[in-house]
Amino acid sequence: MKARVTVMLKEGVLDPQGEAVRHALGALGFDGVEGVRQGKVIELDLAEGTTEERVREMCERLLANTVIESYRIES
Amino acid sequence: MKARVTVMLKEGVLDPQGEAVRHALGALGFDGVEGVRQGKVIELDLAEGTTEERVREMCERLLANTVIESYRIES
Repeated sequence: MKARVTVMLKEGVLDPQGEAVRHALGALGFDGVEGVRQGKVIELDLAEGTTEERVREMCERLLANTVIESYRIES
Repeated sequence: MKARVTVMLKEGVLDPQGEAVRHALGALGFDGVEGVRQGKVIELDLAEGTTEERVREMCERLLANTVIESYRIES
């Protein structure tokens, strides 16, 4: 089975990577880019029967820094 | 309007970041993790009326390295 975890910086946490992308898009002439947030996506190929609870545990322990990041799991 | 771009390394391109995560999950005792691919997700806050074609152009010119990465746009 597959699971996809998306990890984003929480609202209010400064995102310099996103800011750099926003700035670069402007410099390339793309107008109207009002905000950019960059995060990561982790695609997991898991043994059958792995529960979402188990994936949540992976997020809490390794994949996300829950002090500054939020995560979302899709199966 | 919002658009979300997901950028992943193409199949067959070595993903050392994903491998590192897979290894770390194993070391933490998470069994059954058969594969991990890590990519990035870019959330764009765009002026109303920005076309998907325009977002595609942003991907081609900046957000993805299309030699080794594939991208997907969701609005």
